[in-house]
Amino acid sequence: MPVRLEGRLTRPDRPAAGDYCSIDRALQVVGTRSAMLLLREASYGTTRFDDFVHRVGITEAVASSRLRELVEAGLLERRPYREPGQRTRHEYVLSESGEDLVPTLLALADWGRKHAPKKGTPTFTHHDCGADVSVTLRCAAGHDLGTDELVVRG
Amino acid sequence: MPVRLEGRLTRPDRPAAGDYCSIDRALQVVGTRSAMLLLREASYGTTRFDDFVHRVGITEAVASSRLRELVEAGLLERRPYREPGQRTRHEYVLSESGEDLVPTLLALADWGRKHAPKKGTPTFTHHDCGADVSVTLRCAAGHDLGTDELVVRG
Repeated sequence: MPVRLEGRLTRPDRPAAGDYCSIDRALQVVGTRSAMLLLREASYGTTRFDDFVHRVGITEAVASSRLRELVEAGLLERRPYREPGQRTRHEYVLSESGEDLVPTLLALADWGRKHAPKKGTPTFTHHDCGADVSVTLRCAAGHDLGTDELVVRG
Repeated sequence: MPVRLEGRLTRPDRPAAGDYCSIDRALQVVGTRSAMLLLREASYGTTRFDDFVHRVGITEAVASSRLRELVEAGLLERRPYREPGQRTRHEYVLSESGEDLVPTLLALADWGRKHAPKKGTPTFTHHDCGADVSVTLRCAAGHDLGTDELVVRG
């Protein structure tokens, strides 16, 4: 069941949405698998370059340019650190903006668990009560809703 | 605030998650901007090849291979149709599996509206009451939760 459209979005000849669309604007920053997986790692507490490379399973070159893009876009903060006897290095810490990407990661996990199931997959649970966590569509008036109750007005 | 990790995920030398991670398995299917935007269009009711090309703003070659991948992965269904006097063509309709990607699209929209705001961006509202819609983390026991209450057990 498609969502309901209103306004300019209902015109058959509506042009490419581009920057006009908030989904597209987000994807211009995190529209690659490697960017998303680096953010997953950062939300899991990974901060160091070598750990990002190892835990995401990407090349150093890809990790380097993707981390730089995520820092420039404000999702990660780059901070200097120095271990005894070592030169200064930098670590990458999730910013508030990066943390706001966690619901997207969890929505992807919901899809992956349901439509590409695999035994032994990590679980997402609520610390306080232990119940499984997923994402829900919710309106500001407090109603949960399905896709077919969603109106997109352009 | 990172999420809380338990189990094997807490090991410093844990290997690249790969297929073991449900987020990654989802991204192996929808880990490109063009795939996500084609699914946005399909959820908005777009079914025809030319409309996908025009409304997403991608080349025919990219649209063609991406649509094929999404059909193969089961997110879109390819159906024949025929207009009077024309040859048979195919349209692409969101499957149940594709519809389950809508929360991910809305989570991206939440991020885009907050962190890359732009005037005139389409709104997402609840058909029944008109209130703004966003995604929420919710546990099976009915609690809403923040990222810092999320436990990932690997």
